Formats: sequence, C-alpha cells, structure tokens
Amino acid sequence: MSKKHGKQTVVFGKPVGIAATASVVGAKEGQGPLGTSFDIVEDDMMLGQKSWEAAESQLVKKAIDLCVKKSNTALSSFDYIIAGDLLNQNVGSVFGLLEAARPYLGIFGACSAMGEGLALGSMLIDGGFGDNILVAASSHFCTAEKQFRYPLEFGSQSPPTASWTVTGAGAAALSHNGGDVVVTGCTIGKMIDMGVKDASNMGAAMAGAAADTIMTHLQDKNLHPSHYDAIITGDLGYVGSDLLLQLLKKEGIDISQNHKDCGIEIFDKNTQDTQNGGSGCGCCATVFASHFYPHLQSERLSRILFVPTGALMSPLSVQQGKSIPSIAHAVVIERRGI
Amino acid sequence: MSKKHGKQTVVFGKPVGIAATASVVGAKEGQGPLGTSFDIVEDDMMLGQKSWEAAESQLVKKAIDLCVKKSNTALSSFDYIIAGDLLNQNVGSVFGLLEAARPYLGIFGACSAMGEGLALGSMLIDGGFGDNILVAASSHFCTAEKQFRYPLEFGSQSPPTASWTVTGAGAAALSHNGGDVVVTGCTIGKMIDMGVKDASNMGAAMAGAAADTIMTHLQDKNLHPSHYDAIITGDLGYVGSDLLLQLLKKEGIDISQNHKDCGIEIFDKNTQDTQNGGSGCGCCATVFASHFYPHLQSERLSRILFVPTGALMSPLSVQQGKSIPSIAHAVVIERRGI
Repeated sequence: MSKKHGKQTVVFGKPVGIAATASVVGAKEGQGPLGTSFDIVEDDMMLGQKSWEAAESQLVKKAIDLCVKKSNTALSSFDYIIAGDLLNQNVGSVFGLLEAARPYLGIFGACSAMGEGLALGSMLIDGGFGDNILVAASSHFCTAEKQFRYPLEFGSQSPPTASWTVTGAGAAALSHNGGDVVVTGCTIGKMIDMGVKDASNMGAAMAGAAADTIMTHLQDKNLHPSHYDAIITGDLGYVGSDLLLQLLKKEGIDISQNHKDCGIEIFDKNTQDTQNGGSGCGCCATVFASHFYPHLQSERLSRILFVPTGALMSPLSVQQGKSIPSIAHAVVIERRGI
Repeated sequence: MSKKHGKQTVVFGKPVGIAATASVVGAKEGQGPLGTSFDIVEDDMMLGQKSWEAAESQLVKKAIDLCVKKSNTALSSFDYIIAGDLLNQNVGSVFGLLEAARPYLGIFGACSAMGEGLALGSMLIDGGFGDNILVAASSHFCTAEKQFRYPLEFGSQSPPTASWTVTGAGAAALSHNGGDVVVTGCTIGKMIDMGVKDASNMGAAMAGAAADTIMTHLQDKNLHPSHYDAIITGDLGYVGSDLLLQLLKKEGIDISQNHKDCGIEIFDKNTQDTQNGGSGCGCCATVFASHFYPHLQSERLSRILFVPTGALMSPLSVQQGKSIPSIAHAVVIERRGI
C-alpha cells in the first residue's frame, strides 16, 4: 500500500483539496507587479506592534485568520497548523499562532517552509490523520535583515546577487474534501551542498537543490517538463534561476519554456531596486496564495510543480566558514479532475 | 477512514515498529545514573571539531550512523530523515545529516522535537508514504549556554529552577515492519502559555503544555493513567514535574504513581550540580533511546506514554518581554501484541 513512486516521490490515494489561500504583505510588495493580487497590503512595517518580530507574527495571524474565513470552515475544525519562518526558534510562527490554539507542528526548512508544509499537510490528510489542516509561512524584511545581515540603521549596501526579503505571510487551508485546486503528490528533497559560502548569493546556493528535486521528480514519475504548465521555484531570483536552467540542461532537461520563480515575479527589477529579486519564506507563500493559486482556479493554469527552495545556514554557521547547504521540496498542484 | 479519536489523538491502522534506537552523549551524562546505558559516551566536548556547533552536528551524525547500523537496514532504504535541535536555523541537524543525503524534513518544536519527529514519522509510515524513517534530536550544553544564556567563559551562576542542557543526540529507526517495540498512536499538542517569562524556569513554562496534552490524550481515548506503565515527560525537571502533578490533580487526574521525567532520570541531583535536572532536545531523545526503549524490549515496561516538552522562546523574544509558550506531543509506545 506504499504510495511511493521511484526514489523520492509520493502520489496521494485521493487528491487533497486546497479550500482557500490568503496573503498579507508589506507596502513594497503592494507596489510590485502582483500588488493588486494580494489580499491585504500593510502600509505600516510595524503593523501597530512594538517590534518587527511582533509585526511578523501579526502577518501570520492575519493570513491564518483570513484563510480560515475564506475556507468557510471553523477554526476549531482544523486538526493541525503547520508553519515555519526564518526567525531564531521560529518565534514568528509561534506568537502568530498562539491564539489560534490548535495542535501545532513547527517546521524549519528556511524558505522551503511552504513546500514542506504543503507536502506534510497533504500527507497527513491523505493518511487519514485529519480533515482540515492550515499551512503558513512568513518573513519580514526588517527581522531578516537584522538577524541575518546588519542593523537596518547601518544602511549597508547589498551586492547584485543579494535578494530582498519579502515582508509577508501566506497561508493555505488543506481539506479532505472541497476545493477545485488539489495537491496530488510531492517530492521531498535532499540537502544539497554546492560549496557556496557567500550568504549574499543564496540563489547560487539553492540552485543545486532545486535542480536535484526537479530532476528526481521528473525521473521518478517519468515525465517531460511540459507535463506542467509551470515549474515554479521559490526564491532563486535571477542568479539562481539562470544556474538552475544550466544545471538541468547539463542533465538533458530543458525547463526554460515553463520555469517561473516567485522571487522574480514579486518585484519589478527595473524600478524596485531589489537586486536578485524577492526571497524569504513569505515570498513563495504569498505569490502562491495570491497569484498562482487563483490562476489554477480560473483555469489559466491546469497543473504546476511548486518547488519552494531553502538555504540552510545560520549567521553563525556562515561566520564559522561553513558552506550553505540547501533544500527544495516539490508539490504537484492541479485543477481537480484534469 | 479517519484515524482520529476525540479532539487531538490519532491511532494508527497498523503499529509502526521502532527497529532500533541509538544515543551519543557527553562525559557528564556518562557519569550520571544512566551512564552505562548510553551507546557512546564522548569525553571530548568538542568531538574533535573546531566549534561546539560542529561538535553537536557530530553527535547527530554518530547517533544516526549507529542507529542505521543497529537497524540492519541500508541508509539508502530510509525514505526520510526527520530531525530538530535548538540551534538557530537548526544547523545542528543540518550539518549532522548533510552527508546522509536522504530526503530531509526539518522540524522545530524546541525540546519536544523527538516527540514531534516520532509522531510525524509514524504518521508518514502508517499513511503509506515510506517504509523506513529516521528520527533524531540533539542538544549540546555549550552551544545552548552560548546561544540562550551567557558566554561560558563568563561563568554565570544559574538559579535552582534552571536546567542543565544535555549534551547528546538520540535517534530512532521507524519501520513499516520489524521491531518488538511499536508506536500505536499520538496526540499532537497545542501551544499553551502559562504567562511565565523567566527563561531560567522552563519547567514552569512547560508544565501547562504537558498537562494539557496528557489530559487531552486520556480524555480522547477515555483512559485511566494506569493504562500506561509510565507517563514520561521530556525535561520538566523537579519544578516542572511538581507543577504538572498539581495541574493534573486539579482536573481530577493523578499520575503521581507512574510519572517519570527524563530530565530527572539523566542526572544525579545530589552529586552532579544540575539544579532542576537535564533539558534540551537531546535529553528525552537519549533517555528514550537508551533507557526506556530497552526497558520496553526487555519487558520491564509494556506500554508508555512518551511526552516530550518544548519551550517556544528565543533569546530575543524573552528580551522583548514576551512570555514563553510551550508545547508537548504525546506518543504511545508499547510492546508489539500486548
């Protein structure tokens, strides 16, 4: 009764519905090309809180609250909340979800959190362990800059390979029943170490993990990339996306016609001064929730491979001279019944 | 086909075997009451590495390697590794598991990691998503002191309510088949906030979560505490264990006859100067792996409720005046066929 296909891929016995999604972003994201798509745009980076960390937790809380409302399901009917963020000891998720008072599974996969959450949540529903599960992921430009780079007041310059951490939280309500958009399988990724040690070039660090997971997924299911309308990575940005295409080309796989990257989609390279593009757990979580998910609902897309990518480093591991291992998880999301 | 019982508890369709466990600890743990039980005792806190963080990763690597060997299963046959630790961005697990090159699911539940991992891993196997899964959790006295409290060189004194972070990693090999000891169900906990703000009294912070999860589990399955030979919390220590018994007594539940706490078991209060007892993700992971698991194998115990407990704070959240929400997950572990 194993649901495994090939080396790392599973296919669910029954498609798992995504009953609703929700996103809350900051002002800069609201000014970007997808600005009108997000559910809520917050003008105040503090969201009325006393710290950026508390503001990030508010993003999570608002995204979850809205997602529950849109799902037409009572909060008490959600069996688990699965969530992750970039903050030390996941305090963004913890304080954002405390009041929800539902069984909580904290995850850490850096910016791959939304992929890990959707995969785990779908497996728990398909396995019969719950009927409704909330998944969320968040990041905040100011909490990430402060924690991973320099105090904001220092006004440091970033190199062209550096990404801009998205201020935002995205959430999805997985359901045993309902939903025109469904998760039908996933490929859990391995950690891949490309030997990159530059914490200002995480696109390069993550490209190898994305390539490995996408290649493994296609091989496990014996598929051509054109099986998917879009293969969507999380936050590789311009540098990482170029590398991803090159790495896959070497293996005889060409995804150039259908590859998209949430980090490229969310900001306007020419006017928003965001260098390599957007990044952070909130990047692909919000872009999926408010851009790709509606496109699946409206039949502009029929089937996507959603591949959030994460760089598994800490400021300390970088200071200690360690390389930056990365990971990517692939989630198959499609219109029900295609 | 839901496997849910009551509000938060699931019971597996088929028991999930624990084919093997392994533990690696530091010298102080080796000198404690369970010293001769652990698989490997490391005399050198650095484990030959250049940093304490790298030493913690070595603990993880050694525990996993030994667990794989004891399970008589090839590393390549493990479908996933699920692991967590206390370090910022989980770098203890990341660098300890990188070479294993298996699909990786990072979790963060603070010291509840081994409970979250065993529960998730068992659900993934029971759901048909894999046949063999490794679960691991680790902590290191020096990395934790440095990150959460003061530089070790400062020689700070700790109050009697403070716990001593265990240097150790524990691992378990879950299996679709084999194993005389099995996981038969679990209760995923909610975050509980007792309003405790003292990071030197995590036993008090965590007692509420342990009480909530144990009470919910017993109610969900309509059980008397005596159903279990032992109800084993993770690292409440003396202070937290007293509070747990009081909190449950208020609800009419008396577990005083069969409660054990891994933080109390691992050190000798009178001779080891460990104040409230042991703590850290590695505390209950190693005590389960090398004390309670063998007791289940040898029939000294027939059925336990294993309840790892986690304090969900970061140094920053404490500095910002936040309270310390906590969480506990309960895992039912018993001899096959009782």
